[in-house]
Amino acid sequence: MTHPLDDLVHALRQFAQERDWEQFHSPKNLAASVSIEAAELLEHFQWLTEEQSRRLPDARKQDVALEMADVLLYLLQLSDKLGIDLLEAAKAKLKLNAARFPVEQARRMARQVSDS
Amino acid sequence: MTHPLDDLVHALRQFAQERDWEQFHSPKNLAASVSIEAAELLEHFQWLTEEQSRRLPDARKQDVALEMADVLLYLLQLSDKLGIDLLEAAKAKLKLNAARFPVEQARRMARQVSDS
Amino acid sequence: MTHPLDDLVHALRQFAQERDWEQFHSPKNLAASVSIEAAELLEHFQWLTEEQSRRLPDARKQDVALEMADVLLYLLQLSDKLGIDLLEAAKAKLKLNAARFPVEQARRMARQVSDS
Amino acid sequence: MTHPLDDLVHALRQFAQERDWEQFHSPKNLAASVSIEAAELLEHFQWLTEEQSRRLPDARKQDVALEMADVLLYLLQLSDKLGIDLLEAAKAKLKLNAARFPVEQARRMARQVSDS
Repeated sequence: MTHPLDDLVHALRQFAQERDWEQFHSPKNLAASVSIEAAELLEHFQWLTEEQSRRLPDARKQDVALEMADVLLYLLQLSDKLGIDLLEAAKAKLKLNAARFPVEQARRMARQVSDS
Repeated sequence: MTHPLDDLVHALRQFAQERDWEQFHSPKNLAASVSIEAAELLEHFQWLTEEQSRRLPDARKQDVALEMADVLLYLLQLSDKLGIDLLEAAKAKLKLNAARFPVEQARRMARQVSDS
Repeated sequence: MTHPLDDLVHALRQFAQERDWEQFHSPKNLAASVSIEAAELLEHFQWLTEEQSRRLPDARKQDVALEMADVLLYLLQLSDKLGIDLLEAAKAKLKLNAARFPVEQARRMARQVSDS
Repeated sequence: MTHPLDDLVHALRQFAQERDWEQFHSPKNLAASVSIEAAELLEHFQWLTEEQSRRLPDARKQDVALEMADVLLYLLQLSDKLGIDLLEAAKAKLKLNAARFPVEQARRMARQVSDS
């Protein structure tokens, strides 16, 4: 069974190789790139209220989708360089979060924050 | 045909609902969360040389994998809230990048940066 | 006439020298550090509403002050390495912003955003 | 005795008031803005080696100075909204760091990182 993100990883590898860009793609640089693209994503929401962010116009939503894509593309390239299975890591992290935030305790925390 | 990331999106939705956390998950807050987690990822590489970042010890690599997972999990939650297909967006962005950086021109740029 | 931030810059230089940390303080690493600390600052506001962020409890405010300090300290170290006068740059940027955002036009933009 | 950054804070306050931008300047939004500008600063170093970052051409250095200015300007606006004395916080943080990283121990840590 093929990994669902494998095609993208493979295409990204070829993309970088063809352009001689692999020399720049150290894990350190790719991690910085994830962060830089994440900030460009955040920039779309910088001056919106939370309420406005819930009803983005379609044109803005398409821009946001491309910024999100940039974050994912660098994340995938980093996972490729480090030999990390990103989907497996995500599943493992979700399990850790479930153990770290038991339902009842998490609901109490939520109430405290929203009442504060 | 099911979307490969759908299971994760569904699990994340249930995770937030059970904990009453949906109230906090405005697109604005989720975008900020992507950025915050991306910085925690970068922190692992903060004082490493590029060369050191290429040969991370296994224990460090596992920590890095979990930080990468955090970025992906928030990215998926944001895509869910906005009704964005993250994989489709990634494919579309890769096509745009191919048009934006033709191979020969990109190789020349690479040479200029590495020679500078 | 002494530069008001000079004492801090001087103390930071001595701090790094004593600890043999200058080897890590390339401009690239310091810029990444500014970004990492900025995200730790943002983390304090991650799940707060804008309204809650306007009335932080005092204890939280002190934590926020120390995160802001971290951003400034790395910014000062970066300015020192690059020979940049940070205060002069800030004054110059403020002038550029005034030219870029004429008052009347900026008020109209503000109205559009808040009405959207 | 006047605070050295007071003039800037005062000018920023007037700048925002004239443009009706104060409505957008919640501490939450200003903290996000610090992070966004910090990432734009980092972007200048994204593909440079540490060595290249130590010898930036003058034109690039001027761009970097203006990005650093953006970070400082938002940091000052945030400090103004929260009633935080940024310089005092920086001095306090430096003292805490001195206690947290005793010289000899810090030198050993530095050696470990650079030998790894």
